[in-house]
Amino acid sequence: MEQRVSLITLGVADLARATQFYRRLGWTPSPRFEGADVAFFQAGGMIVALWGREALAADAGLPADASGDAPSSRIALAYNARSRDDVDAVIVAAGQAGGRVVNPAKNTDWGGYVGYFADPDGHLWEVAWNPGFSLLADGSVRLPD
Amino acid sequence: MEQRVSLITLGVADLARATQFYRRLGWTPSPRFEGADVAFFQAGGMIVALWGREALAADAGLPADASGDAPSSRIALAYNARSRDDVDAVIVAAGQAGGRVVNPAKNTDWGGYVGYFADPDGHLWEVAWNPGFSLLADGSVRLPD
Repeated sequence: MEQRVSLITLGVADLARATQFYRRLGWTPSPRFEGADVAFFQAGGMIVALWGREALAADAGLPADASGDAPSSRIALAYNARSRDDVDAVIVAAGQAGGRVVNPAKNTDWGGYVGYFADPDGHLWEVAWNPGFSLLADGSVRLPD
Repeated sequence: MEQRVSLITLGVADLARATQFYRRLGWTPSPRFEGADVAFFQAGGMIVALWGREALAADAGLPADASGDAPSSRIALAYNARSRDDVDAVIVAAGQAGGRVVNPAKNTDWGGYVGYFADPDGHLWEVAWNPGFSLLADGSVRLPD
């Protein structure tokens, strides 16, 4: 298995609601799939997908997720921002777009600045300014050598 | 918020167990963080992190996840393989590495070939051969225009 991730699929209760949330944050779904039961967002070299919870569970052969929209800490996506101010701005924007501010940004013991929001389905996002990781112009993130 | 994801952090019960699982699948954690309480894997333009469940929950200000190691369909990561045979090989390898084969690969109604495994902490991975998405030599995945 090569060391890469192709897609992140977020199970959602209401595709229109979820798509609207990410649109309000500035994202644009692929027009090619407009009207489909899934929304795809090209995100660098990978893709973020929004898909109905029941459909995702059925595809995997698992029981449907019963946790509702409560924010879950089982897994977190992270968005590395370009500055501390940018961290605050993204968290405010997420709250205004219909998400939940889970933890306002704070300084960390490793010299960064980190906050968390959850999308309308409870998917957790960390928003971080991390001076230890390189953030390239194209948005790619690199671990230190 | 730019349309990108910087990290995926998987909450794990046992960092050594989780790291060993991804090592057995062929991944190599950053040696820079050896001995730390987190493992980082460079994955194209983003990073996959393994971090203790309690630490992740505390960082987010949320209750610790109580779902144990049961596979969850709330969110799925996906690995797009280069052939149908490669899909089967990855799912077999995941089972042998200490994961759980959740759904053996099947043909889909959209012309693809898809199966699912879960890692030792129940994080769900779809393994897919998808003729509709471009898979570049460097592992990047592209939506059709």
